Amino acid sequence: MKTRIGIAGYGNLGRGAEIAVMKAEDMELTAVFTRRDPAGVQILTEGVPVVSISEISEWADKIDVLILCGGSATDLPVQTPEYAKLFNVIDSFDTHARILEHFANVDKAAKESGHIGMISVGWDPGLFSLNRVYANAILPQGKDYTFWGKGVSQGHSDAVRRIKGVKNAKQYTIPLEEALSAVRSGSDPELSTRDKHIRECFVVLEEGADAERVEKEIVEMPNYFADYNTIVHFIDEDEFNREHSGMAHGGFVFRSGTTGINNENKHIIEYSIKLDSNPEFTTNVIISYARAVKRMYDEGQRGCKTVLDVPPSYLCPQSEQELIAHFL
Amino acid sequence: MKTRIGIAGYGNLGRGAEIAVMKAEDMELTAVFTRRDPAGVQILTEGVPVVSISEISEWADKIDVLILCGGSATDLPVQTPEYAKLFNVIDSFDTHARILEHFANVDKAAKESGHIGMISVGWDPGLFSLNRVYANAILPQGKDYTFWGKGVSQGHSDAVRRIKGVKNAKQYTIPLEEALSAVRSGSDPELSTRDKHIRECFVVLEEGADAERVEKEIVEMPNYFADYNTIVHFIDEDEFNREHSGMAHGGFVFRSGTTGINNENKHIIEYSIKLDSNPEFTTNVIISYARAVKRMYDEGQRGCKTVLDVPPSYLCPQSEQELIAHFL
Repeated sequence: MKTRIGIAGYGNLGRGAEIAVMKAEDMELTAVFTRRDPAGVQILTEGVPVVSISEISEWADKIDVLILCGGSATDLPVQTPEYAKLFNVIDSFDTHARILEHFANVDKAAKESGHIGMISVGWDPGLFSLNRVYANAILPQGKDYTFWGKGVSQGHSDAVRRIKGVKNAKQYTIPLEEALSAVRSGSDPELSTRDKHIRECFVVLEEGADAERVEKEIVEMPNYFADYNTIVHFIDEDEFNREHSGMAHGGFVFRSGTTGINNENKHIIEYSIKLDSNPEFTTNVIISYARAVKRMYDEGQRGCKTVLDVPPSYLCPQSEQELIAHFL
Repeated sequence: MKTRIGIAGYGNLGRGAEIAVMKAEDMELTAVFTRRDPAGVQILTEGVPVVSISEISEWADKIDVLILCGGSATDLPVQTPEYAKLFNVIDSFDTHARILEHFANVDKAAKESGHIGMISVGWDPGLFSLNRVYANAILPQGKDYTFWGKGVSQGHSDAVRRIKGVKNAKQYTIPLEEALSAVRSGSDPELSTRDKHIRECFVVLEEGADAERVEKEIVEMPNYFADYNTIVHFIDEDEFNREHSGMAHGGFVFRSGTTGINNENKHIIEYSIKLDSNPEFTTNVIISYARAVKRMYDEGQRGCKTVLDVPPSYLCPQSEQELIAHFL
């Protein structure tokens, strides 16, 4: 029997999840839930209903895992514990500083109702977290480095768009090649976030706006840009729409550690991803973990879980023998 | 209570395991077992007995996890099932083609006696296997690439040493930079093992040996070198001992895959390691998994396990809350 998936929220993440489910032979999409008028939401899968989220409780016994595609700022802190009362749920909550609080809320709701709530699934938190944990377990003595990009920072793009005279803007966070090289060399440099990244902005001006003033406001903006090496390009709207509508992203996780009785041997572990579509990659991670949620639930596990709790084989549709034969 | 570790076999791997246990606050070394005369084996940890392997059965209730440090060709196929009758065991069996057979033998012995036998722990098989499984789960459509090196191939070094006139030799397997670049570019090249690696030999000749003939025998050797780009250097014994006694190794695992309704988005996942000491890194992996073996045994799990069965958090001494706070 196929795992029955529900999707709550139909933006970039919801659409990515839908495509990943279409391609998974062991899963089927049962329903998409939306806060909008369902009549106005067109999905890709034929024959699957789009339902108002106000009616979601009627679907409690028809769905094995509900994928929550809301945002971390205001949606998920409410939705994940709430829907964990009715469903096994999975989210991509990514506010690192509030994960323990979110964990506690989801754990309580999921244990009381007898479900699994898996949180913070994606690539950071998610795959990058896994790599930090594996590498720290193996090299207990060492240093961790995480770099983000090249990719769009939504918060920094918004900050540029709020400047008077700016019609549209995208800000790319770009890892600094010399910082990457220093880490790879094993020299264990001390690097702050600003030592590791540069910020590149592509800006479309309103007609008549003063480019010089806008550039000054960007590069001097406290917290966002003042402490970084920031590059500003002014481009026209056609170029902006043509070149800067993509959702590419990526990043690097390193651990540089030592072994030996006198720590005389150096080891470097490097993990990196380069993504054409951040939301589609993220939802592919989520769909793999939805498979694991179903299996862990069937085994009797309950409560809040993270990627750190999941045996890797649970992510795969293949049997243990197939995995051993092909991948071990 | 600390996890009580036994080590069977005291070569490079056994010594690496001993050092890793010394540095793990939640573990203690109980005994080292050897086929040699115990009186002639000097270990690093004070107060820990070196015991003849013929007496190992007397230690059955004094050890939580026995680490098997023998070779995959003849030692482990016998030792792992045999000692799984008495202990929870862990090995680094790395003959990929025979892993399913080894799994079946260890599973039978471990289930009959009520133990866990964890096999094929290290970096390939081991960490590289994990990365292949994670990446295949997340990107079901795509191609896998594994590169080895730069590091010493024992089998190829042995083959060169068997040539008449060769006094000593080391063979390094080196990933080809242009093949790595092609994979990173996302062009999904078709690459055989020989397209991905070059072979570099450092050879010390016997006095009066004919260098030209030796070089010809190396580069034309079927299976080992004939199909590769092979570089041969003749050096003197001093240089050999000074420059080529290290145990550095490394490698790369890639998955290049697509998402999107028409597979229009490309994603590349890259994992790599660069190691000063292959045996010490390998034993650090083994020690992390020994921690997991203890925990899985205490939970009631039995039989043969691999790295694919282990939740990442089980590798760490930290609590779940600490892991979430620091690494997620």
